[in-house]
Amino acid sequence: MKTFDIHPTDKSLEGAIWQKIDNLNKPKGALGRLEELAAQVCLIQHTLSPSVAHPCHLLLGADHGIEREGVSVSPREVTWQQMLNFTRGGGGVNMFCRQHGFKLRIVDVGVDYDLSSCPGIINRKIDRGTGNFLYEPAMSDDQFNQAIQIGSDLVDDCIGEGCRLLSIGEMGIGNTSPSSIWMCLFGDVPLRECVGAGAGLGSSGIRHKYEVLRRAVENYKCRFGQDGATDVVRCLSYFGGFEMVAAVGAMLRAAERHLVLLIDGFIMTACALAAIRLYPASQDYMIFTHSGDESGHKMMLDIVNAKPLLSLGLRLGEGTGALCAFPIIDSAVRMVNEMNNFQNANITKYF
Amino acid sequence: MKTFDIHPTDKSLEGAIWQKIDNLNKPKGALGRLEELAAQVCLIQHTLSPSVAHPCHLLLGADHGIEREGVSVSPREVTWQQMLNFTRGGGGVNMFCRQHGFKLRIVDVGVDYDLSSCPGIINRKIDRGTGNFLYEPAMSDDQFNQAIQIGSDLVDDCIGEGCRLLSIGEMGIGNTSPSSIWMCLFGDVPLRECVGAGAGLGSSGIRHKYEVLRRAVENYKCRFGQDGATDVVRCLSYFGGFEMVAAVGAMLRAAERHLVLLIDGFIMTACALAAIRLYPASQDYMIFTHSGDESGHKMMLDIVNAKPLLSLGLRLGEGTGALCAFPIIDSAVRMVNEMNNFQNANITKYF
Repeated sequence: MKTFDIHPTDKSLEGAIWQKIDNLNKPKGALGRLEELAAQVCLIQHTLSPSVAHPCHLLLGADHGIEREGVSVSPREVTWQQMLNFTRGGGGVNMFCRQHGFKLRIVDVGVDYDLSSCPGIINRKIDRGTGNFLYEPAMSDDQFNQAIQIGSDLVDDCIGEGCRLLSIGEMGIGNTSPSSIWMCLFGDVPLRECVGAGAGLGSSGIRHKYEVLRRAVENYKCRFGQDGATDVVRCLSYFGGFEMVAAVGAMLRAAERHLVLLIDGFIMTACALAAIRLYPASQDYMIFTHSGDESGHKMMLDIVNAKPLLSLGLRLGEGTGALCAFPIIDSAVRMVNEMNNFQNANITKYF
Repeated sequence: MKTFDIHPTDKSLEGAIWQKIDNLNKPKGALGRLEELAAQVCLIQHTLSPSVAHPCHLLLGADHGIEREGVSVSPREVTWQQMLNFTRGGGGVNMFCRQHGFKLRIVDVGVDYDLSSCPGIINRKIDRGTGNFLYEPAMSDDQFNQAIQIGSDLVDDCIGEGCRLLSIGEMGIGNTSPSSIWMCLFGDVPLRECVGAGAGLGSSGIRHKYEVLRRAVENYKCRFGQDGATDVVRCLSYFGGFEMVAAVGAMLRAAERHLVLLIDGFIMTACALAAIRLYPASQDYMIFTHSGDESGHKMMLDIVNAKPLLSLGLRLGEGTGALCAFPIIDSAVRMVNEMNNFQNANITKYF
């Protein structure tokens, strides 16, 4: 796997940042989480005048071999149907991108359908879906490296257009399954606590899904032993999700390039956990935006000590939680840039 | 007190509303709280195509006699200084109004300073602050009726400009004190659990504040007996806050005129509780936006069974919590209006 040059944010400005925030015309700490967010964005961008201009949203789509095992309530064809729907502006992700001024990039990383002639979809297809990890690795090493590179390159494209803040969403029927396994392996959590309803499984569906994933993890451990289970790159490529590995690549490149990175729901949190396991410093660049209803999501957020901004019961995917949280980050940035301080507001300083 | 003609929202459209929401191209319920919000806005406006166009924010300012008892960390002059600051665009409320396209009306309902020649401040001054309710009623019956009418008239002005969604904020040093007492009396909660730090009191300051408020409530009960304690109008005018009574009037008029009404933090929740006690149906029009850190706020939200949208630790007042939550309501409305359904998106319907 390619290497990334990721460092913790430079804390030398921290004192000056908090001095600026504490001197704005409000009681100290009165803007709560907005103040913490503002400080984080200032640190990421190493400035007292941060900007979240030209936000971009990557919507990465791919299919999953494991879907063949009936682990999802929705059929595989929904992936490509939704990809097309996104190009016509009618999906959840479209509305929120319009609302908040995000440039939306819809990327086919591995959808099981020919979308190459479809305007509005960036064609980075690696294959028509991953292998079924119940029986075989989801992808080869080459495909894994390709997916990382695709994610990384997409971030460079965004930066080329002035992007300073990135969010990432996914479309891939079946992708809560690899996410659950990543959570189990990277978070050292019993698999049972990592498996949930996805887009709407009932209790018997969840039992079946758990059974499939349990067998898959068992097979994997037979093949690679306990060491394999702690080899992050091996786990990523074995359980795959082209869109998920591409997301990991995008997150790492975003951290390397000092972007503000919005992390969405269960699947993107699993990708973030992977990125953090590979490069712990990458977490400095992440804002966890939404705590979803998917069983285990809160636990995964706890593993990385994240306190998400919203808890709205969203479970649509597509990065919609991250988009819904954007105005709060925008508010934090406006606070630093636009709010008067006690001196220029002519207000008796109070604490 | 003038009467308001407030009815529960008309539920006859409820079936059609949920049919529309459930048929949007997403798993059923996948947009969580957004779906509930969308349904509420549709019910309030009695339509399947809701709108939150031309949102308005009322910023009501006034001073409080009780401030003379040292119940607040900030001196009284901060009220008028902040009112002026708001006219120059440098306050917290200004940034968020700009960010979300709210028309801001800054209204002097009873600030202890001559602001009549100040451009940008609507002059509805009733008096230069209320009486000190430790010794006397905060306001006369006439002043109470005036405050209710002012709030109501301000809402009509907003509606005249096409406003369909209203939020209300306040500026009044000392106003967590009457709020705590309203919570105690209207919510039947022991006073000690209603008294918190306001804008930043320490523990000895909170003890002193509690002692002052305890004596005030005792005096009040001596004067009016137990019946007085359950007479909502009497409590409102005795403990006052011109800006708070005006807010109650505005909330009731907003409910009467079927506006979507955003309820902010501790003080505005106390006003909402008063409005609900006067007209229980007014709650149908309210969206509780933020759960603040002020001790007792969560408890007050529980009293009215409200699940606030955000919990960002804001304690600035000015209605900033309501403004920060607006994009979420806007998202909900966009969902109903802009998202494709399964038919026009050509997607296999999945649940």
